[in-house]
Amino acid sequence: MYTVSVRDHFMIAHSFHGEAFGPAQRLHGATYVVDLEFRRPDLDANGMVVDIGLATEVLRAVMAGLNYRNLDDEPAFKGHNTTTEFLAREVFDRVVAAIGRDELGPGARGVESVRVILHESHVASASFTGPLS
Amino acid sequence: MYTVSVRDHFMIAHSFHGEAFGPAQRLHGATYVVDLEFRRPDLDANGMVVDIGLATEVLRAVMAGLNYRNLDDEPAFKGHNTTTEFLAREVFDRVVAAIGRDELGPGARGVESVRVILHESHVASASFTGPLS
Amino acid sequence: MYTVSVRDHFMIAHSFHGEAFGPAQRLHGATYVVDLEFRRPDLDANGMVVDIGLATEVLRAVMAGLNYRNLDDEPAFKGHNTTTEFLAREVFDRVVAAIGRDELGPGARGVESVRVILHESHVASASFTGPLS
Amino acid sequence: MYTVSVRDHFMIAHSFHGEAFGPAQRLHGATYVVDLEFRRPDLDANGMVVDIGLATEVLRAVMAGLNYRNLDDEPAFKGHNTTTEFLAREVFDRVVAAIGRDELGPGARGVESVRVILHESHVASASFTGPLS
Amino acid sequence: MYTVSVRDHFMIAHSFHGEAFGPAQRLHGATYVVDLEFRRPDLDANGMVVDIGLATEVLRAVMAGLNYRNLDDEPAFKGHNTTTEFLAREVFDRVVAAIGRDELGPGARGVESVRVILHESHVASASFTGPLS
Amino acid sequence: MYTVSVRDHFMIAHSFHGEAFGPAQRLHGATYVVDLEFRRPDLDANGMVVDIGLATEVLRAVMAGLNYRNLDDEPAFKGHNTTTEFLAREVFDRVVAAIGRDELGPGARGVESVRVILHESHVASASFTGPLS
Repeated sequence: MYTVSVRDHFMIAHSFHGEAFGPAQRLHGATYVVDLEFRRPDLDANGMVVDIGLATEVLRAVMAGLNYRNLDDEPAFKGHNTTTEFLAREVFDRVVAAIGRDELGPGARGVESVRVILHESHVASASFTGPLS
Repeated sequence: MYTVSVRDHFMIAHSFHGEAFGPAQRLHGATYVVDLEFRRPDLDANGMVVDIGLATEVLRAVMAGLNYRNLDDEPAFKGHNTTTEFLAREVFDRVVAAIGRDELGPGARGVESVRVILHESHVASASFTGPLS
Repeated sequence: MYTVSVRDHFMIAHSFHGEAFGPAQRLHGATYVVDLEFRRPDLDANGMVVDIGLATEVLRAVMAGLNYRNLDDEPAFKGHNTTTEFLAREVFDRVVAAIGRDELGPGARGVESVRVILHESHVASASFTGPLS
Repeated sequence: MYTVSVRDHFMIAHSFHGEAFGPAQRLHGATYVVDLEFRRPDLDANGMVVDIGLATEVLRAVMAGLNYRNLDDEPAFKGHNTTTEFLAREVFDRVVAAIGRDELGPGARGVESVRVILHESHVASASFTGPLS
Repeated sequence: MYTVSVRDHFMIAHSFHGEAFGPAQRLHGATYVVDLEFRRPDLDANGMVVDIGLATEVLRAVMAGLNYRNLDDEPAFKGHNTTTEFLAREVFDRVVAAIGRDELGPGARGVESVRVILHESHVASASFTGPLS
Repeated sequence: MYTVSVRDHFMIAHSFHGEAFGPAQRLHGATYVVDLEFRRPDLDANGMVVDIGLATEVLRAVMAGLNYRNLDDEPAFKGHNTTTEFLAREVFDRVVAAIGRDELGPGARGVESVRVILHESHVASASFTGPLS
């Protein structure tokens, strides 16, 4: 199995609901450094998993839709705790949608699964991995 | 599949038995930077894989049981080479025992598997991954 | 010249005022990974620059005063853009105050200067370095 | 499942063929930092996945066969784009060949699979993972 | 003293002249991860060392002038070994020229010195630091 | 000012004397990842600060004199706490001695100062910087 991974980041404000979150129930924020990984069993005609230039652009576009925002005000996240693991899934869903719109090129249809890792600090991270159907 | 990972470290002395270890047969030591990763297929009611605050406390407690020790003197390791891969399994077993004692909260019962990675330097690491039964 | 450095982090929300900040004028947030470095020309009787246990506690206490907050609501920051470089100076001032209260032990009086580095992402950081008078 | 991983690097020149590569069609180069990971379900009699000293030597020997070269001039790569993912597979094949020649010791026959990760910058990497048959 | 630092990278081919370089006399290449650091004694009216958005653009422009090239073919480097330390100075000179053209904004005139660090692998780096006159 | 830096590591056991060290008074150990940095105001005829190949060999030789040892048994350290800052100075002294024996080549006489950084974990490090007289 081959993978290719690209990295970018976004910076947001949010708060959490539920006693389990302790002081993180207050409005605070985070930098998320994001690794976006594509997996496929063989390479395309160019010898690539995906076009890394297009992958970088897709990731940048997904970041732009989240960056410099207060997630508490985003209708899409109403009623959800925007934990690191929840946001990893959200980035995954947006990347998969971009693949569906052919923004990664037709070659990206050979991708079997995608992994999104969000690093929230030097000591904590979360990820979501799922297949492309 | 979702994951959440937290990081801590411990510092120990030990020596190895067997010619394969060369100069590491002498008493020496290591810093192990530990990544503890929890995996589950869906999030709990709070939108979490595990309570990251409790996960950090469990990891710290496991580290405290190993930190600042000469492992050659620990009865638990008698007859074993405490290699990095062996210690990754040891940390895994202690975390699984803590989950069994509900120290990660009842929500942690949704965790399917745990991965423990030990970084012994900037150029070497080892890990153990296993299911929660 | 000797140095000792310890690391911790804090997570905050804030917004900036001024066209130069572009989309960062919106309420957003950041994780700051903080390196706190002490410099002195010789070691104390224990062979230390500072007591690294006390240094870690002082840094944790300073982090606790900033963590999980919306800096726009903090009276101390009224009228200031809480940029990364501004916050590096703020952490510096709080550490110096703690040294003045002997929280790092009497040995810390041998420290000549302190450096605070704040990493806001994998691609950007800021620092403040100043003498202890 | 246990893993052990060792790290080294090599530095090469190459160029790519195909419009998808844009300016990377020009002769340029890269540093590849390589993580070589061995996976097996149980430890050998010494408590090891593989002899980490031998693993380091095998990786160094494979690096020496690639380092300080213009890959466009290597007959082995004729007609191929030596992308990061392609080179991850190439390192994998050379490591597997070394295991076949018993250069990792007879104990390495317990290894089930190998993963090779190539980091080409702070924001991009690729990998190949395959079984040892 | 305050600093702000931004990171980017470039990928080039080159060869070295002189027996001291051993196998690096052959045509090979490197990824250089670049940290560009600005230093000044006080902050501007916005609370900044430099406009970090402009700093990122200036660094990207300098990288674009070096990226995906064979430095052996660049007239500017004729007769020079393009070692990591030499290239750190080259990036410094190009950044200083951009400041002279006001590409970092008029506020950048308060910058006292600039440091450029080039990381060529996980085990080697070089830097050049100089004043702005 | 130019710098060049190379990295290696060593793994030792030791214990500390003095209440300030708490549980670190017990026999334990550490991995030290070492950055060795050379500083000089101009480059030599090859365009280098030092011959990076020789620098790597000198660092490796110094590491070999410390690696896989119990520092409590080393006569050279009798009566000293082998703290991270103390060991940074020790590595510095051994490197300076090697330069005095011309092991870095005659060109290394242009080096003005040397910095040694020891990373003992992901959250703590120490350094010593001194001139070459």
